[in-house]
Amino acid sequence: MANLILLRHGQSLWNLENKFTGWTDVDLSENGVKEARVAGKLLAKNGISWDVAYTSLLKRAIRTLHLAAAGTDCLYVPEIRSWRLNERHYGALQGLDKSETVKKYGEEQVRIWRRSYDIPPPMLKPSDARSPLFEKKYRNMDPRVLPMGESLKTTCERVLPFWNDAIAPVLLEGKNVLISAHGNSLRALVKYIKQISDADIPNLEIPTGIPQIFEMRNDLSVARDYYIN
Amino acid sequence: MANLILLRHGQSLWNLENKFTGWTDVDLSENGVKEARVAGKLLAKNGISWDVAYTSLLKRAIRTLHLAAAGTDCLYVPEIRSWRLNERHYGALQGLDKSETVKKYGEEQVRIWRRSYDIPPPMLKPSDARSPLFEKKYRNMDPRVLPMGESLKTTCERVLPFWNDAIAPVLLEGKNVLISAHGNSLRALVKYIKQISDADIPNLEIPTGIPQIFEMRNDLSVARDYYIN
Repeated sequence: MANLILLRHGQSLWNLENKFTGWTDVDLSENGVKEARVAGKLLAKNGISWDVAYTSLLKRAIRTLHLAAAGTDCLYVPEIRSWRLNERHYGALQGLDKSETVKKYGEEQVRIWRRSYDIPPPMLKPSDARSPLFEKKYRNMDPRVLPMGESLKTTCERVLPFWNDAIAPVLLEGKNVLISAHGNSLRALVKYIKQISDADIPNLEIPTGIPQIFEMRNDLSVARDYYIN
Repeated sequence: MANLILLRHGQSLWNLENKFTGWTDVDLSENGVKEARVAGKLLAKNGISWDVAYTSLLKRAIRTLHLAAAGTDCLYVPEIRSWRLNERHYGALQGLDKSETVKKYGEEQVRIWRRSYDIPPPMLKPSDARSPLFEKKYRNMDPRVLPMGESLKTTCERVLPFWNDAIAPVLLEGKNVLISAHGNSLRALVKYIKQISDADIPNLEIPTGIPQIFEMRNDLSVARDYYIN
């Protein structure tokens, strides 16, 4: 049996500014840094360590990992980063003020974009300055896999290959794994791991900065899961 | 042609306390954190980025890398950690006060331990509480490779396989590489790269927190090397 530890990054500068973030690579706010440090203390207090860490290509998740790892003296543990753990791409909504978007499109439409399982936000044009095509960190990727906007469903579809090919084999070797990622990439993982239905997944909320432990059986079913405190 | 960027970590807590450090995993001092941030600014100002980063298993080098990478927006770049980039193991001197050691053994003896190429410090006993055999981060290693004390010569011998097998092939692919490491693991590398003789290497000093760029030719000889400012 191995432990899977999920950690959602703390508050970012755009959470603070109430903007849609998605793949925009904004940093943690001061409060987000504090949340990550508290996560490190919780992990240390509970004697939880890991053998491999995974994170996204976005600095709010990477820094959360580093701050949490420093708190539990796990900075030396191997750390692998993948775009597949990135936040859901929020398409043309990225950078927009959330309350102004509600004013413009109506509360119901915004709720659907934010909460529905399979309805994507309005897509970015590939020529948009915000497109990942123009970002250095994705320059070695096949441009056709770079999303211009994602629903939770399409987020699941790109997270799962990384789970199956990179993370699951390591858990099956009996190693403990920590994943520092984002609200929606973590929801995608938890949906799969706990076999949550499309209908129920909109109700799953993942708190920021509170490590969640999954005790995995040898068939990668979940024996027990809990938040530490 | 590819760039190799070498960065020596800034001041650690034990530099500050004037203790022999070696493999002891002490953190950066406040001043060391500042030095790493300045390194990040220097890299950004000079438009220098890298495709892969390498560092040791010691947090003062890992944190230096993270702080420098944050400054030049390279936190997403893959980062590989190896014990082979660790500082020289200072044997039974680790944790001793430098000036007290001078009083006890004499200035000349301490100078030899610190500066000679092939004379190791007094060895740790494997049963010593300071032995790497008892450290979790080395638990997956063949215990026979764990040093109980190293000269610069034996440091070179364990750094070079990592250079040859991990780093050199990446440079030969034309990728830029940053190595965040330690005074003596970097001296070992520079000795090899610049073919410095055993007699001359004691005179090589590597400053902390100042990135040094090596422009490497296709045969991994050095076309030019300079510190950025």
